[in-house]
Formats: sequence, C-alpha cells, structure tokens
Amino acid sequence: MPGVSDFPPVSDDVLLGDLGEHAIVEHILRPRYGGVPAFGDDCALLDGSDGLRGSDLVATTDSCPTPLVTILGETDPYHTGWLLVTINVSDLAAAGATPLGLVVNYTLPKTTTAGEFRRLLDGVDDCAETHGTRIVGGDLRDGPVRQLTATAIGRCVPGGRLGRTGSEVGDRLLLVGSPGYLWAYALLAEEQARLPEPLVDEIRERACRPMAQLTAGRLLATAGLARAAMDVSDGLFPTVRTLCRANGLGAVITTDIQLDDGPADVCAQAGLGRFDLAQAWGDWTLVVAVRSDDVELARKTLAAEGVAAQEIGTFVPREAGIALDDGTPWEGIAQERFSPSSWHGGDLSRLIADVLGRQAPSGS
Amino acid sequence: MPGVSDFPPVSDDVLLGDLGEHAIVEHILRPRYGGVPAFGDDCALLDGSDGLRGSDLVATTDSCPTPLVTILGETDPYHTGWLLVTINVSDLAAAGATPLGLVVNYTLPKTTTAGEFRRLLDGVDDCAETHGTRIVGGDLRDGPVRQLTATAIGRCVPGGRLGRTGSEVGDRLLLVGSPGYLWAYALLAEEQARLPEPLVDEIRERACRPMAQLTAGRLLATAGLARAAMDVSDGLFPTVRTLCRANGLGAVITTDIQLDDGPADVCAQAGLGRFDLAQAWGDWTLVVAVRSDDVELARKTLAAEGVAAQEIGTFVPREAGIALDDGTPWEGIAQERFSPSSWHGGDLSRLIADVLGRQAPSGS
Repeated sequence: MPGVSDFPPVSDDVLLGDLGEHAIVEHILRPRYGGVPAFGDDCALLDGSDGLRGSDLVATTDSCPTPLVTILGETDPYHTGWLLVTINVSDLAAAGATPLGLVVNYTLPKTTTAGEFRRLLDGVDDCAETHGTRIVGGDLRDGPVRQLTATAIGRCVPGGRLGRTGSEVGDRLLLVGSPGYLWAYALLAEEQARLPEPLVDEIRERACRPMAQLTAGRLLATAGLARAAMDVSDGLFPTVRTLCRANGLGAVITTDIQLDDGPADVCAQAGLGRFDLAQAWGDWTLVVAVRSDDVELARKTLAAEGVAAQEIGTFVPREAGIALDDGTPWEGIAQERFSPSSWHGGDLSRLIADVLGRQAPSGS
Repeated sequence: MPGVSDFPPVSDDVLLGDLGEHAIVEHILRPRYGGVPAFGDDCALLDGSDGLRGSDLVATTDSCPTPLVTILGETDPYHTGWLLVTINVSDLAAAGATPLGLVVNYTLPKTTTAGEFRRLLDGVDDCAETHGTRIVGGDLRDGPVRQLTATAIGRCVPGGRLGRTGSEVGDRLLLVGSPGYLWAYALLAEEQARLPEPLVDEIRERACRPMAQLTAGRLLATAGLARAAMDVSDGLFPTVRTLCRANGLGAVITTDIQLDDGPADVCAQAGLGRFDLAQAWGDWTLVVAVRSDDVELARKTLAAEGVAAQEIGTFVPREAGIALDDGTPWEGIAQERFSPSSWHGGDLSRLIADVLGRQAPSGS
C-alpha cells in the first residue's frame, strides 16, 4: 500500500488537475488527515460516538453530478434528486449503517422554475423514503451553476461499522446488487440493442432510479458476515483496486459475472461480454469482503431479503497484483477525478467506447 | 406568522428568481417539510436521537460564498476555509450544540494549485480546531466553478436544544458577540476612515477570522437561560424579523448599540451611526431571546467566558410590528436569496452604500 513516504512533497504551484485524485489524496490529504479514524472509508466516524449509547455515528457527503440518464434523454430533475440521495445512502450502506436523516444543500440558478425544483425535491424525498429515512434540513441559495450536495448521517450497531480495511488473503469478494442496468439502458438508447417495450421500461426504471444497497450492508454488518466493504461508485475496477490497496492485498477476479436477463440480452446483442457491462458504474452495487466460510450464509441472508449477490473473486497476496481468472492482469475502466478521465457528461458514443471498451458502430 | 394558507399555490413555470427566498420557503418548502421537527431552525434535528443517551443530535449544512474580505484584497484562500467552518459552527451555536465533527465537500477547478488548496485546508482546520472540533471526512471533485460546502454535526444536552421558537412578549433580545468588525474593515479599505496600523491589523484579523459564538450558545442553552436563538448571517434586521415571525411577535430595538473602540472610531470618522454598522452582517453574532429576569445572569455568565453581550431590544405583541426605540418602524438591510439583493460580490462602493445605507464619497 502506498504510504506517505512513497510520495515526495509537491510544490505549491502544481495544479490539482496535473496531480490527479490519487496523488492529491496521498500528497495533501493523507499527511493532514491520515490519523483521523475511518480516513479513506466511505463514511466518516464522528467524534464522541462512544458517549452515545451503543452506536457508532457516521456521516458522508457527496455532491451530485449530472446523471448519465439525463444525456440519454431522461431530463426530469426527479432523477437527479433520486441520484443525490442514492450516492449518499450508498456510502451508509458500505458502512453497514442505518440512516438518521439527510441534510441537503442546493445552489440553483434563479432561472430554475418552481416545477423543476418540485420535481427535484420529489426525487430526493421519494428516494429517502424508499430507504426509510428523510430530509431533516438543508440550505438553499442562488448561484450561477446548479450544485447539489447532500450529507447523510447514520448509526451502526456497536462494533459493527464497516470500512475498507479488515480483509485477509483468502477472503472472497461478493458483488451485492444487480449490475449492468445503467449501461444497458445507454446501449438501448444508442440503438446497439433492441428489446420489447416492457423490458426497455424495466431497464429504464432501474437506470433512472438505482437502489443503494442499504439493507444488504446493514444485514451483513449486523450479522458480522462482512470484513470490509465499499460501494461501486466509479466502476468495479477502482473499487477492487482501492480495497486491495487499503488491505495490502491483491485479487483474482472472475470474468464470469452474472447479469439479469434484460442486461444480459442487451449485452449479447451489442457484442459485449457480460463482464464488460458489469464492471461499469451507475448501479450502486457493493463489493463486500467475506470469509470464505461465510460466503454461503451471506448469500442466503441476502437472498432472504430479495437481494442478489454473487462471488466475483478472492483476495490474494499483494505481490500477485490484480488479475482476472485467466491469469491476465486487470486494468479496468476507472474515472479518476482531477484527471482527463473525470466524467462531466459529453458525447454518448465516445463515452460508451471509453467505458465499455469498444467503438460505437460507425454512423451511430 | 404567515402560514401555508396565506400563500396560494404557485404554478410550475414561475422562476425561483421571481419568487424570492421567503416565498420559496412558504410556497414550496413549508408545505413539504413543515412537519419536520426543527423546520426553519438553524440546525436540523436528526431522527432517532431519543435512542441515543441523553442527547439531541443536530446537523447543519451551508455552502460558502466568496468572503467579503476577498474583495477587500485579502485573497488568501485561508479566509475562505475559515469562513466555511464559521458559518456552519455558527448554526450549531444557535442550537446550543457541541460539535462532533464536520464533513466537507469541495468542488474545485483543475486549475487550482496545490498551494491554494493547502491554504484553504489550513483555514478550515484552524477554525475547526479553534472550536474544539475537526474535519472527519469529505468529498473532493473537480468542476468548472469552485463550490465549498460543509456539514457540521453536533449534540445538545437533553432538553437544551435551542431553536427559533419559544419566546414570549417581554423577553429581551441579547446580541452576543462584537458586531461591526467586518464592515469597519471595509470602510478602512475604502479609506473612509484611518486608524493606526496596529488597530487596523486587529480589525483586519477580526474581519478575516470571525468567531462563531459556539461557547456562548452552549453556555446559555445548558444553563437554561435562552428561550430562542438565531445567528446573524444575513444582517441584524432579517434575524430579528425571522425570530418575530417564528414566535408571532413584534420587537422594539434600541439604536444605542455599543461597538468596540476600533469599529466605533471608524464609524465616527465615516459619519455613520453605530447602529448602521452594528446591523450589518459578517461578524457571526447571535441574537438570543432571554427572560427579562435572566438578562443579568446571562450577561454575567457570558462575561465570565470573555464573551460580550448587550441587550438590544424587547419582544412585544405582533401588532406592534418591528420598530426602533424612537417609535419609527424598522426596515433594515436584508439580503434575500433568489432576489436582486442576493449578494455574490460586486463593487465595494456600491455595496457599502447598499449595506450601510450611505453613499461612498465621490471619487472613491
């Protein structure tokens, strides 16, 4: 695992855009905050939690990018509101926490209509309610550019808080949730596949309203079945890589990933492997490290709640790196903030090529 | 107090900029969130707090505007970082809460230098440490426009949480903290007054690093000496008006407000009344409603901690409106978001004229 010593100090005149997110974390943030408990985890641990009966208090904050589905023509602000809550609740899921509420921070142009604002709030409130929580407060101000930020606060059972560390060689990696819906919908929108209307509707629904794995994270944490966890916010590869780095481990990942029927059909029509689709981002799955003896119990526990989970790999010694099960090193897609790969929207065909690793058909 | 019934529904195509903040709150937010505990208070109350031993958990979130001192030539990002924490901790102060930590959310252009980022973090960390807390987590991403948001989480003693309601006719209004420093510095920068260098330095210091009244808020809340409180984030008038509306009261406010020597001297040189300076924003004072019998005890309690407090008025029946002690109605400065008065920087001379109610000397 790279430590501070691997990164010489950078001079004050270097641009953040020339450093990239990883170097910013190692050069600037880790030296300053590395001693803060839960540094690097999806959720922060609040001070003084031990004075609150039987509970670790956690908090997480994320601002919301333009949803990919907006580019796909789904411009209803509802989806943006839904996503704003999803990305924050998903971090609580990775900590195994139960939400106590969210606060929201909206900067909106004065040209926003009341109707657009109401739809945004509908999406926020519906998603929060779906996860058994709600908006308890917030801040609203005008500004030149829309900027949406939320903070979710939650509590964990004593000793049950999950972070990114705590795994060992031999632990299995469970992918919790159903991947591939968002990018299947992108392929449908690009007409690289066709499906009957009801199936398209279902895939659109899953793409527009992704479900954070809150119940799953809490169940696994409470039952002591998870050793480490992280949500898939930027793609499967960066998630696995971060877990490997945090634990000083390598991993072998299977390419034989299962998709639900709809995404699998889209995949086949578009000439993609299922793994290509499954390793993309946008479905807010969790990667959870589980002792090999606990895999079956974990899967059954989740299945009883209607949550899909599949084993996708094994932690191995660090020296082995991150490889696929055919023995080739894995260097999957990863958007890195403060780098050219940082995603802010853009041309769909090019995006599909970048993310799914293939050229869109000419003329599309 | 205006209720939902006073505001007919607005159609979806009305622009937020044509509604203004107050109407947005009454038309859109109150019908949706009015039933949430602590709606309208400076801090939100988290659900399930009663399950946590002897504590009300509160949270507040605010994004940070460009500090006025930046326009005054103090361009060090340190001051922006300091302000980001101040505005959030000040809301905890108004709730009488003790901070458990803050999470931060930075959207920064890729052209930000490492040095600028470090100075920003220095200001954030120093201000948090000054208030006995720290940054426990956050989110960092690149974007076209700098946007800084923080969320502070705190706890109150059982039954000691302060909000904006709870006051009655006859309660006195205490102004906690020392007003006038920020705008005194603006007047010095505009050369409408001159002071010896050490005094200028002191005023600059107070303007650049305002102190949220965290200790004062907690002391008054814990001792049961405060009935309602709100921080002065947008000026004294909107704070008093909001407290009046929340409690269904009017107020009589004295214009005989005390300033510290430095701001008082600037005031006199600039030909302004002390009240003109004291009613502006930027010093993160608190307005606290106190029973008349408790005023002296409250002042002594604060004085023992080195915190200045002065009585600035009395709550009266609603019908009397908000008046000054000479009997004239008071309509002070108030920046309202989503209105032309919403402040985003701009020309200093004009700003001084707008906020302090006088024209800058010609030629300045």
